[in-house]
Amino acid sequence: MSAPCSCKHAEEESQNGKLSVLTPELQKEFEDPNHPANLICELCRLFYDNNWVTGTGGGISIRDIEGKNPNLVYIAPSGVQKERIQPWEMFLVELPDEKILRTPNDIPKELTKSYKYKPSACTPLFMSCYAMRDAGACIHTHSQHAVMVTLLFENQKEFSISHIEQIKALPKLEFNETTGKVEKVGSMEYYDKLVIPIIENTPHEEDLTDSLQEAIRNYPGASAVLVRRHGIYVWGETVWKAKVYNEAIDYLLELAVKMKLAGIPLVKEE
Amino acid sequence: MSAPCSCKHAEEESQNGKLSVLTPELQKEFEDPNHPANLICELCRLFYDNNWVTGTGGGISIRDIEGKNPNLVYIAPSGVQKERIQPWEMFLVELPDEKILRTPNDIPKELTKSYKYKPSACTPLFMSCYAMRDAGACIHTHSQHAVMVTLLFENQKEFSISHIEQIKALPKLEFNETTGKVEKVGSMEYYDKLVIPIIENTPHEEDLTDSLQEAIRNYPGASAVLVRRHGIYVWGETVWKAKVYNEAIDYLLELAVKMKLAGIPLVKEE
Amino acid sequence: MSAPCSCKHAEEESQNGKLSVLTPELQKEFEDPNHPANLICELCRLFYDNNWVTGTGGGISIRDIEGKNPNLVYIAPSGVQKERIQPWEMFLVELPDEKILRTPNDIPKELTKSYKYKPSACTPLFMSCYAMRDAGACIHTHSQHAVMVTLLFENQKEFSISHIEQIKALPKLEFNETTGKVEKVGSMEYYDKLVIPIIENTPHEEDLTDSLQEAIRNYPGASAVLVRRHGIYVWGETVWKAKVYNEAIDYLLELAVKMKLAGIPLVKEE
Amino acid sequence: MSAPCSCKHAEEESQNGKLSVLTPELQKEFEDPNHPANLICELCRLFYDNNWVTGTGGGISIRDIEGKNPNLVYIAPSGVQKERIQPWEMFLVELPDEKILRTPNDIPKELTKSYKYKPSACTPLFMSCYAMRDAGACIHTHSQHAVMVTLLFENQKEFSISHIEQIKALPKLEFNETTGKVEKVGSMEYYDKLVIPIIENTPHEEDLTDSLQEAIRNYPGASAVLVRRHGIYVWGETVWKAKVYNEAIDYLLELAVKMKLAGIPLVKEE
Repeated sequence: MSAPCSCKHAEEESQNGKLSVLTPELQKEFEDPNHPANLICELCRLFYDNNWVTGTGGGISIRDIEGKNPNLVYIAPSGVQKERIQPWEMFLVELPDEKILRTPNDIPKELTKSYKYKPSACTPLFMSCYAMRDAGACIHTHSQHAVMVTLLFENQKEFSISHIEQIKALPKLEFNETTGKVEKVGSMEYYDKLVIPIIENTPHEEDLTDSLQEAIRNYPGASAVLVRRHGIYVWGETVWKAKVYNEAIDYLLELAVKMKLAGIPLVKEE
Repeated sequence: MSAPCSCKHAEEESQNGKLSVLTPELQKEFEDPNHPANLICELCRLFYDNNWVTGTGGGISIRDIEGKNPNLVYIAPSGVQKERIQPWEMFLVELPDEKILRTPNDIPKELTKSYKYKPSACTPLFMSCYAMRDAGACIHTHSQHAVMVTLLFENQKEFSISHIEQIKALPKLEFNETTGKVEKVGSMEYYDKLVIPIIENTPHEEDLTDSLQEAIRNYPGASAVLVRRHGIYVWGETVWKAKVYNEAIDYLLELAVKMKLAGIPLVKEE
Repeated sequence: MSAPCSCKHAEEESQNGKLSVLTPELQKEFEDPNHPANLICELCRLFYDNNWVTGTGGGISIRDIEGKNPNLVYIAPSGVQKERIQPWEMFLVELPDEKILRTPNDIPKELTKSYKYKPSACTPLFMSCYAMRDAGACIHTHSQHAVMVTLLFENQKEFSISHIEQIKALPKLEFNETTGKVEKVGSMEYYDKLVIPIIENTPHEEDLTDSLQEAIRNYPGASAVLVRRHGIYVWGETVWKAKVYNEAIDYLLELAVKMKLAGIPLVKEE
Repeated sequence: MSAPCSCKHAEEESQNGKLSVLTPELQKEFEDPNHPANLICELCRLFYDNNWVTGTGGGISIRDIEGKNPNLVYIAPSGVQKERIQPWEMFLVELPDEKILRTPNDIPKELTKSYKYKPSACTPLFMSCYAMRDAGACIHTHSQHAVMVTLLFENQKEFSISHIEQIKALPKLEFNETTGKVEKVGSMEYYDKLVIPIIENTPHEEDLTDSLQEAIRNYPGASAVLVRRHGIYVWGETVWKAKVYNEAIDYLLELAVKMKLAGIPLVKEE
């Protein structure tokens, strides 16, 4: 209500001052509000307000598909307050070898206050989405709607919902035998059954990689994977598609929790 | 909380820069914060915060009833992020023939980034409200309160509530035999029963037109139509009336869900 | 999330322009952010975000107790969007005769767009709080927590809660036989039972006056009156006290709804 | 949505004006946005939006661990609107004797409007966290999730939850026999059981001190103490750690309420 806002102009002003310790190249990058590093910051602030990344939880990674090298991937670091990250705090990785090109530990100490950054534990999971689905961005949240759905359906390996208009915001995906890739062939229909696989959580986030990859393989129609008692991974062709899919799915998960508690079946029998 | 705000002045500044590629006429239009195209942007941002238009869902259309040609109608495009639309992205249609006068596809590519805009699938529904009720604006949301009410009363063809103060924010409408029109004759009373018809959803939004029109005809007292498993359409004499009616109805739908789950009848027997 | 904010500086700028059509005296008044007319605007925006005054519902009135004439009372008009009111839209009334000194209908048409303002239907209720309790401000909301409490306890004439820390934010009031007035003698204790009378709603808001006055008389310890199926009236010695009491009471009403639905008694037996 | 934001630059501007009545030393202190007194203001605005400190409830204290004298502690005053406090309104106390070095009552009356400030009733509780745990900051909220958990488990002396990913945001603490101190040895694991002691509320907040200290002694692994029917105390090594722990715990308390009401056990049997 009366909370501090982070007006773009205010930020720009203050950042311009700070940015001067960076190389001119980096300065120029970070002056562009549409640069992946800045978009990660903007979206993390938005996600924080939705209770999706509070307490350093969750994260986001964007692939620079519109840039000169579409194999560059920006990833927010581990364990920091997501709503307060700055563009120079990202790890920069190159696909397909996942070579680390830049880390925030290379940034002048004036900006990082000598903090020792670690790559996000989600990194191999994000990489799986890039490699297996040619994603342009990948979002990971600790959404309580996601966690509640995995708890309310504790014995199920997938979440299903049908006959809700918001399903139409999600892509219809199909495996193309010729290209050997999962490709978007349109949008889901209102009456389609949206199915999202649920994998079991593991003590260490990186250990989710195998089961996430298996779920992605087994569910070619899915744009997301739920992790029981943990949250959700959502990806899309671009950062904006990933954002829209994540919003639509979270809307459906929120509705699904209400429906389940009210005794309304999630999948409508026709 | 710490999310980016979109201060008017910041926006104006940045837009002034961008707007320079437009014709002087369009520039002048879009400099007026009360221009329908700008009001659509402002209200979509507001609706986004209410979870009414997340994930590209929902939309709004405004008729320029205070302008030189009150038959001009501005409509937000299909499938875009509603909270981020810009004034030049609207379709402009003239009543009563629904002739398209301008599309965002005519706007210089610098602004649209060559995106191929499609008219909203809600267009024939908005047009029905303009034609049948002489509306000044029409709002369509995916409000979860609206969807939940249609699910909690899955076998009912209408939603009814009475004896709640907020009902007084809604107009009392009556069919005037002389003019052959539905006209506002005052405000609803506290003890009045608010009745909103519920129509069944269809796979394609435009296919809702017939049943929406039938509902509008059969419910001359209604300012809104609920769409099962989908959302709601609300209209009003002006954009601000439509906004107020939509807020009041959503308040009542939210309350109705709570009342139903707590076992409290929505219509009070006297 | 990305909704338009109304930064003070932005507002001031735009208002300074608009204000120039006013008399220098009024201009000076409205330049002071702590002027009652400006505080009403600020608090209405805040209340809107809490779902307390959406759809033109609710309102607020402030008595200028720190001004030259502490009998001046500012009241927001009826039926307008509360989050968008401007300082020149207030009715100005003088106690104790409730003489109207100024109405927004006297303001230059450039500012009011010739809108015909009506005094709030809450006016006699606000006046009752000023007359009977020497209040400095009075807040009226359509809070859903307030409405739900009156519905969950439909057969009760009062709302009671005890043993919640937040109760300590409320004043301990006692009738002083010497002065013949209800006076604040301290703060409520954690273990005190907070009692708020519930009156029945009436078709016309002004008809609530008698029962509100009766409730105020019968409950000398109360700082608020609940109106069944309608909302709540809360008052305090100053505008800030009224705001704090209203926040604390709404917190308790919200908690009470949760407790009731979970089967937890609101009043703890010791 | 349309609520006033408090842009940093706007604040700075207005504060710069006001600050001129202060000594140059204090002016310089309060110009630094990272000064503990300013951080308290910033975080209180944030907490207000979460319904954690509405109605003057709750508070925060920060120890100046990065300053010249790490024994200085800043504490917000009692009974004021937490989202509106200003940096000069803090009490300044020195550890370990809790000597009051500065009170807002020493500040020029132009700024304080002659308000008589009292130290927060939480002061001895905050001091306990500094003394017993070497905390860098301590947060106290009236979070409804915290209160509800203490009500839903009214007969239990502790709150426990396990197997939720967000648990990993909390520190693993152990008593070090050599130093005689509780020290952080890492982060909690996903499968660890988070245990937070619940103490009974007392009529006067300062009377909680003994039971809070006892709970801190008996639960060397805890970073927080719940107070039944009241709220929670959370502390951390730095202000940012305390903020993150508080967010993570509140997320878990919110989830715990939902789980309990849905009949899902909070601690998973393996």
